[in-house]
Amino acid sequence: MSKPVSQMSRGELEQFAADVEAEYANVQANRMALDLSRGKPAADQLALSNGLEDTIAGDYTAADGTDTRNYGGLRGLPEARELGAELLGIPASAVMAAGNSSLSLMHLVVSVALRHGLWDDARAWQHANAPTLLAPVPGYDRHFALSDALGIDLHTIDMTDDGPDLAQAQAVVADNPDIKGIWCVPKYSNPTGCVYSDRTVEALAELPKLAAADDFVVLWDNAYAVHDLAYPAPELASIHAAAQRAGTADHIVQFASTSKITMAGAGVAFVGAAETVLKSLEKQLQFMTIGPDKVNQLRHSRFLQGRLAAHMQQHAALLQPKFKIVLDTLSTELGSLDIARWTQPKGGYFVSLDTLPGLATEVVSLSAAVGLTLTPAGATFPYSQDPADTNVRIAPTFANLHDLDAAMQVLTLCIKVATARQLLARGNEEA
Amino acid sequence: MSKPVSQMSRGELEQFAADVEAEYANVQANRMALDLSRGKPAADQLALSNGLEDTIAGDYTAADGTDTRNYGGLRGLPEARELGAELLGIPASAVMAAGNSSLSLMHLVVSVALRHGLWDDARAWQHANAPTLLAPVPGYDRHFALSDALGIDLHTIDMTDDGPDLAQAQAVVADNPDIKGIWCVPKYSNPTGCVYSDRTVEALAELPKLAAADDFVVLWDNAYAVHDLAYPAPELASIHAAAQRAGTADHIVQFASTSKITMAGAGVAFVGAAETVLKSLEKQLQFMTIGPDKVNQLRHSRFLQGRLAAHMQQHAALLQPKFKIVLDTLSTELGSLDIARWTQPKGGYFVSLDTLPGLATEVVSLSAAVGLTLTPAGATFPYSQDPADTNVRIAPTFANLHDLDAAMQVLTLCIKVATARQLLARGNEEA
Repeated sequence: MSKPVSQMSRGELEQFAADVEAEYANVQANRMALDLSRGKPAADQLALSNGLEDTIAGDYTAADGTDTRNYGGLRGLPEARELGAELLGIPASAVMAAGNSSLSLMHLVVSVALRHGLWDDARAWQHANAPTLLAPVPGYDRHFALSDALGIDLHTIDMTDDGPDLAQAQAVVADNPDIKGIWCVPKYSNPTGCVYSDRTVEALAELPKLAAADDFVVLWDNAYAVHDLAYPAPELASIHAAAQRAGTADHIVQFASTSKITMAGAGVAFVGAAETVLKSLEKQLQFMTIGPDKVNQLRHSRFLQGRLAAHMQQHAALLQPKFKIVLDTLSTELGSLDIARWTQPKGGYFVSLDTLPGLATEVVSLSAAVGLTLTPAGATFPYSQDPADTNVRIAPTFANLHDLDAAMQVLTLCIKVATARQLLARGNEEA
Repeated sequence: MSKPVSQMSRGELEQFAADVEAEYANVQANRMALDLSRGKPAADQLALSNGLEDTIAGDYTAADGTDTRNYGGLRGLPEARELGAELLGIPASAVMAAGNSSLSLMHLVVSVALRHGLWDDARAWQHANAPTLLAPVPGYDRHFALSDALGIDLHTIDMTDDGPDLAQAQAVVADNPDIKGIWCVPKYSNPTGCVYSDRTVEALAELPKLAAADDFVVLWDNAYAVHDLAYPAPELASIHAAAQRAGTADHIVQFASTSKITMAGAGVAFVGAAETVLKSLEKQLQFMTIGPDKVNQLRHSRFLQGRLAAHMQQHAALLQPKFKIVLDTLSTELGSLDIARWTQPKGGYFVSLDTLPGLATEVVSLSAAVGLTLTPAGATFPYSQDPADTNVRIAPTFANLHDLDAAMQVLTLCIKVATARQLLARGNEEA
């Protein structure tokens, strides 16, 4: 049994380094093509929804009589909006059902908030000196990239096990009117997997009242709303209810999709917001489309109606062994060495790992050199800059069990090699 | 047999007016709910594509091995790009296959051209004083609305039977560097139904060379590329080939979709352009989506492969009787009176009618008063301003034959009533 590297003598450390270097050389000589970077469902998960194709069976008519094949209906089919309401825990009247991408809806919301405003009045972020969004880190790279592409600055705050650091958020929004909103993945946050605590949800619903900006928006990307791995699943408090109490309902915009429920590229995405916000979105959306794919919306509502929970349990059954491999390997290989910390998510798509400071880039590079692709170091931070260079995002879902096991052996080995090299080099400097 | 109203005596005109007013009163007393405003396919046309739902049959794998159910592939499936290539008459390598809306692609192209530029260099329309697009009129209202929503001015030029008035276009683009492009619906133009002549296509391909702007773009919305009603169908010259000859290929962006081939709301849209332009689009698109619905792209490529022409002939068989009713009624009811002119399209979705000057708004209003909905007067002009107030767009496709016949009787009657009232009022002023 190994012991914490911090307690190793110089001799023990040199032996440890020699062992892992030998093992690394062996892996390099027998390199495989492995990948832990892809946060996407595996083929067996996708196959759970092959039944989508049987739902139409010649009947394209929606419950309200709409011929789903034809043009129109910017806000989506009523039964698809019901599905979105189930995912988001809000009334169907507050939901717009759209195309296959919630990212597109986020881009729409942020660009409308920036250029036109969400409330049919003079407020729009572009009037600010430097419109800025809060980025809890580590977080979702596409949120940050989208913001940056629209010319919006990002201000990082820390992510805790309970969600974004509230004290940091409250201080900066009260102080700076350029802070226009906050990105949130409230359940099984990408990548840490934390579920925002009740107190955090309550405080985030109240954030628009504290904000110096009168056009502050909580961007609530509930991408993993029903993506539980362990039962009973943790309950996310309702930000909708909290916002009603706080009087901030106009300042909360929620997102969800079926991308990781049915088919990742062929699902239905939803945005949930107050009527005034949905109207502001439609006002711009009418210049971009005549309406969403209502046939696909009909497929989804028919396929998932009354069986969403059962369907997600099928996903969980496929994913549980994968997360177990990741967590077991981390524990077995790294636990006693005390050279990394990682999250133990109860759902979602990722495990977030932190190396000792300054090693993430090296771990990704060592892994690449022996055939294991990881998410680029820094990807979970705005502008891909992880100041401590520690965060490694592990995506266990896409690989098969055999490859996942091999990949985790390689990853943990590379963490050991990078750590040993750093400690030895430091020892040499000190010597 | 009636005679031209211009040749009627005062007494004959008064009798004509009395007759049509009596008939109008009768229609008003027996009003029906009729609609000639909707440029969308009828249910029997949509049903031609119900077979889309049978194309997957458990096999979601594209020709190149892609699992279409999963994320990714911004440029679309290879076989879907082949379908777009067939529609646009360009190589598949120059096609991006996207979601269900070509309007979304037009919005993307115009906003990227405006804010970032299409060529990965410093050129972008936003640097102009007042970026402006040429709008041949009458034209497609959504082109104009999209441009206006993005803050782009519209400069009207006349539409002729051969396409946009070339002399007007050439003069203004050479003179004004703020003119950044031209909207074109080159085959069965909306609403006139004209097909651009070979000489017009050639001249439009050369327009970027004549333009004072170095970032001029021909926006080639080939929405009705294969939507023929009469055979042999007129051939549209290839702007792709013409642009290759002219050296302007980087300045032509083409659009098409299957909206009026398969299902209006659930089709696949395409953009065709030079590689540098497609790359510029992808550079922004990556912030908006992880990829299009590839399952629907696979359905479409399998469904239409090798039978596009036969499929479109089935549409034509359904649409021919509808266009015949429109044209026969116009001829029978208005022909000898010489109070309107209309187009005789060989394809597409519309008939464009011009009343005597100043009567279009009145005709739409008279029709609405007896239960017939028409496209709002002016809709075919930027800012909904038809300076001569003459243009009425007739959309024959959505109504059934019985309703269409009734609607055309009402429309032609309303044109007679409006004309009679105007002439009598004018006669009274002169008297």
